[in-house]
Order: sequence, then C-alpha cells, then structure tokens
Amino acid sequence: MSDKTPKALKTAVTPVGHTTPPAKFSHGVRKGNILQVAGQVGFLPAEPGQDGPVVAGPALREQTLQTLANVRSVLEAGGASWEDVVMLRVYLTDTEHFAELNEIWNDYFADLKEAPAARTTVYVGLPKGLLIEIDALAVLG
Amino acid sequence: MSDKTPKALKTAVTPVGHTTPPAKFSHGVRKGNILQVAGQVGFLPAEPGQDGPVVAGPALREQTLQTLANVRSVLEAGGASWEDVVMLRVYLTDTEHFAELNEIWNDYFADLKEAPAARTTVYVGLPKGLLIEIDALAVLG
Amino acid sequence: MSDKTPKALKTAVTPVGHTTPPAKFSHGVRKGNILQVAGQVGFLPAEPGQDGPVVAGPALREQTLQTLANVRSVLEAGGASWEDVVMLRVYLTDTEHFAELNEIWNDYFADLKEAPAARTTVYVGLPKGLLIEIDALAVLG
Repeated sequence: MSDKTPKALKTAVTPVGHTTPPAKFSHGVRKGNILQVAGQVGFLPAEPGQDGPVVAGPALREQTLQTLANVRSVLEAGGASWEDVVMLRVYLTDTEHFAELNEIWNDYFADLKEAPAARTTVYVGLPKGLLIEIDALAVLG
Repeated sequence: MSDKTPKALKTAVTPVGHTTPPAKFSHGVRKGNILQVAGQVGFLPAEPGQDGPVVAGPALREQTLQTLANVRSVLEAGGASWEDVVMLRVYLTDTEHFAELNEIWNDYFADLKEAPAARTTVYVGLPKGLLIEIDALAVLG
Repeated sequence: MSDKTPKALKTAVTPVGHTTPPAKFSHGVRKGNILQVAGQVGFLPAEPGQDGPVVAGPALREQTLQTLANVRSVLEAGGASWEDVVMLRVYLTDTEHFAELNEIWNDYFADLKEAPAARTTVYVGLPKGLLIEIDALAVLG
C-alpha cells in the first residue's frame, strides 16, 4: 500500500513431523501479521519410512485432540499460539457429534487467557475415516 | 511485527441479548483492524430465565433475517458495520433456497454505500431446524 | 484504529467478462492490504447477449481450471497474484475427486515462486452441475 513499507514476505509454516501436504499447498502461511492454518485433520505425526498418514483413532475425541494438536503445531511453527487465533472453522461430519465436540473444546481451551477465537461449525463430507477438520486464522502482534 | 508497535489486544465481542455460545468461543473477536464474526444462526435474542435458544421460525426468510440481525449485532458491538465487511460465508442446507436467499439478500443490502462484501455460498448440514448459518470477516479503519 | 491513519477504502473488484453476481455481493473486495475473493465456480466468461452463466464442462478438470482462472481474474483485477494468496478454500462435491484435484492443482501451481497458500478442502453440496467452488484470501504488500 506504500512504497515506503518493505514488502512483507510470505513464508510457509511447516511443523516438524507434519505429514507432507497431498498437493502443492502449505500447512500454514505467514504474511505480515496474518497466519493462516490450512485445514488440519487427525493424522498422527509422520514417521520416517511410514507409508502415509495414520489417523489418531476412529473416535471423535481422539481425532479432535490430534487435530487440535496439529493446528497448534502450525501456530507455534509460525510464531503464534492459541491466544492469537481469531477464527476456528470446524468441519464435522455428523450433527450428533456437536455436544461431545463442545465438551472436548471446553476442556482443551480451559486455560485461555485472552478472548477465545470465534468459531463456525458446519457439517460436511470428509474422506473416509475422518470425523473432523479444523482450520484457523491468527492475527499476530 | 515491530518492537515499537504496541501489541494489539484481542477482545471478545459479545452483543447484549446474544445467547451464550455453546462452548468456549466468542461470537466475535477483534484484534487490530480485523473483526471476525463467528457463525451466526437464526436464534432469537436470549430471554432471561429462558431455557435456551429459540429459532426465529421454520422458514428461510425469518431465519435469514434473524441471522443477519445477529451478525449485525456482533459487527456493531465490535465497532463495525456492514460497510466494513469484506466476506460473508453463507451455509445453506438446500440448493432450492438459493433464489429466495438472493431476494432477501438484495432487499437487506439495498442501501449499502460501499462495495458489497464478497460471498461464498455452500450447502452443508446444520443442526435440526436450522436452515442457514452465516459468518463474517470485517476489516476496520 | 487511529485518527491519524487515513480511512482505508473498500473497493469492489470486478474482472472484465465476469458474470454479474446473482445477488448484491462482490466477486472480490479490497480493503487496505486484504483482498477477499468470493466463491468462484467454473462459469465461462459472460458473453454479451447470452442468457446466463455456462459452466466450463461436466468434468472436474475443466471446471477446476475455469474456477482457478476465475479466481485469478479477481486477484489480478485487485492488484494481486497467486503469490499473494494465503488461503484457498476448496469445496468439492465428491470425495472421489480428491486425487484428481490434487493432480490438477500441482500442475497449475508448479511455477509458484513463494510459499503456496494454505488450503482447506471439504465436501459440500453445490447447485446442480457444479463440481467445485473455490474462494481465496490474499494479503498484499
């Protein structure tokens, strides 16, 4: 917006142990004070020599906690924390999961010091075996 | 991004009369010049002593207008207006609702002075009885 | 946030040849260094005297390439390029399309110089005939 401002760099944010994205996109991108986290699912951290991503478990709780751990890894690799997140989009596959999600959510975020992020929850299709996907927008500074 | 810039505060935006979120998230969050509005649905304003959220009605028109009213309440509580909104995500449950939504939309936003927000409309599942959900991103300043 | 900063203008971004949005929203909106691209689908550029939008084809490849071309048109009309995009949300209708989408994606973005955008892919309903919708968030500067 100004010739005097140095051009902000756009940098990929790739946590150690994260599975390689299945296409040319980044798990996280930082530009200026914006950090965008791509949709994360409940894949376990990649193991060397392992064939591919393994989901944390068949149950909502296990997948949600791993998904949140994966979002957090991207945030931290990008210099942010949950305190910086302004929006979390939650994609569930089953409206019956809403109450359990909220229990897990409240436990997980019990220690937040700043205002919790906004959230949108919608019900979509996901690849077989996945019950939840979450992406995040953080504003740093 | 700079040691000289004071750290931007992240503040929750909670309109008077809004129902308490069903989990630890905020109806709106403001940080710097970014205001993110969580997914709003057609719940009527909370009444003291009332058991829980009551949806504005079984029809798309009633729910859409209440949903927009709820988004607007968050915007205004965060110091913004429709004029500041850059994106509205609309989640419908039925492709048959698209034409009616657009009629309601055009009437509702007829008096906008600045460029209307961008919009994405997709069809998802929502909890029983809900026909529409909308979230919003505003840039102030 | 400050009385000293000039108020940022919000401007609509409308590429030449883009079909008129079906309601009062903008294909793109620029405010400050934020450029938001509305959900784009595989409509061919509008032809004068033509009745309405025509989709690029019945196959995922044709629709995806036209959808990406439409997103790109908005980016360019707003002074941005793929290099500025931090997030792409991809809405597919069929989980069977994931692998083919990724092939198309990798070819399309092979020449990116900066970090690729983050991406979220979910499976939703779309109006009859549409297989894919994409929206984008870019941060300029």
